[in-house]
Amino acid sequence: MKDCALLTVISGFAGSGKGSAMKGLLAKYPDTYALSVSATTRAPRPGEVDGREYFFVSDEAFEEKIRTGALLEHAGYVGHYYGTPRAYVEDNLAAGKDVLLEIEIQGALQIKKQFPAACLLFLTPPTAEELKRRLVGRGTEDEETIRKRLFRASEEADGIEQYDYLVVNDDLDTCVETIHRIIQSEKKRITRCLDTINTIREGVHAFSEI
Amino acid sequence: MKDCALLTVISGFAGSGKGSAMKGLLAKYPDTYALSVSATTRAPRPGEVDGREYFFVSDEAFEEKIRTGALLEHAGYVGHYYGTPRAYVEDNLAAGKDVLLEIEIQGALQIKKQFPAACLLFLTPPTAEELKRRLVGRGTEDEETIRKRLFRASEEADGIEQYDYLVVNDDLDTCVETIHRIIQSEKKRITRCLDTINTIREGVHAFSEI
Repeated sequence: MKDCALLTVISGFAGSGKGSAMKGLLAKYPDTYALSVSATTRAPRPGEVDGREYFFVSDEAFEEKIRTGALLEHAGYVGHYYGTPRAYVEDNLAAGKDVLLEIEIQGALQIKKQFPAACLLFLTPPTAEELKRRLVGRGTEDEETIRKRLFRASEEADGIEQYDYLVVNDDLDTCVETIHRIIQSEKKRITRCLDTINTIREGVHAFSEI
Repeated sequence: MKDCALLTVISGFAGSGKGSAMKGLLAKYPDTYALSVSATTRAPRPGEVDGREYFFVSDEAFEEKIRTGALLEHAGYVGHYYGTPRAYVEDNLAAGKDVLLEIEIQGALQIKKQFPAACLLFLTPPTAEELKRRLVGRGTEDEETIRKRLFRASEEADGIEQYDYLVVNDDLDTCVETIHRIIQSEKKRITRCLDTINTIREGVHAFSEI
């Protein structure tokens, strides 16, 4: 009667707080979730650790992973590669963990093709104005990067309907709990409970024939 | 940015604990939910109050309601009519309340036709054996009624896939909280958030064109 393990993809505008929400989920429910660590060819930011935030690899190493099918999806974003190592996702789902992927929209749609049962969440700040403040306000990027990001946000906004759920990130703790409840509730969907239904149905048919 | 009000239909085998779950939801979240009171032509059981558990009406009065369109759905079950007064549901949704309907499968599917946005939950005891124990063990019904109920359960089991969610009622408090989380999470589905998405999208497009 245990719920099946669920693969959840979380996307959102840069500045929507995806990273903080993932950290919050893992801190609050460490036995429930496993966060997939992506591979990337971009340089580490201050404080980022190889194997924790990302696997930082060279362009050549990344292209080798693509060739050998070691990535579930990959995409380019602002001049760098990002991709999801396949083995980690499959192993954790098999072990009954709910796997979280934090990736952008191109990757999310590739995942949905390979795992039609994946659940896709899109995170957004409460308003476009707040989004702009968060994009510009980080203060660690140059003007050209910010401009690219704003353009990218515009593209992402056009793809939101391809997701399953929209989560407004107004307050981090609330956002973390909302995501947790969406994922755990999604596991109760009829289409994910067919084994349970068949078992109960067979039992009911058996005793109604007496 | 407020979530839209949701109409949720809750069905389940006789003995699945639907009634207790509804009472639990209303007691725990009185400001969130409104429970529709059905009309029926069956006789009150000991302790049942007219207008609380049901509106107890005559066959003639019930048929008059059918004729005047005052019922959202109606169905026969074990020789009696059951139906859902329309005004209560529509008024409470308009006031922003999440409306709960506890009805059987024929009625649930009628509701889904009239309100395609309705969310359909099916409650079940953890096993068929437990279901049988609950059906037989109530001790207030004669053998013929129990036999009819078992047959009815068999029919209901065939319709479960037409629902949206399956909730296993093993422990009442857990069941109440699970239903609450499913309903509130369902309100975050992309298809229910199109106004929010459009507002954010317009804002993002505006500032990305600067």
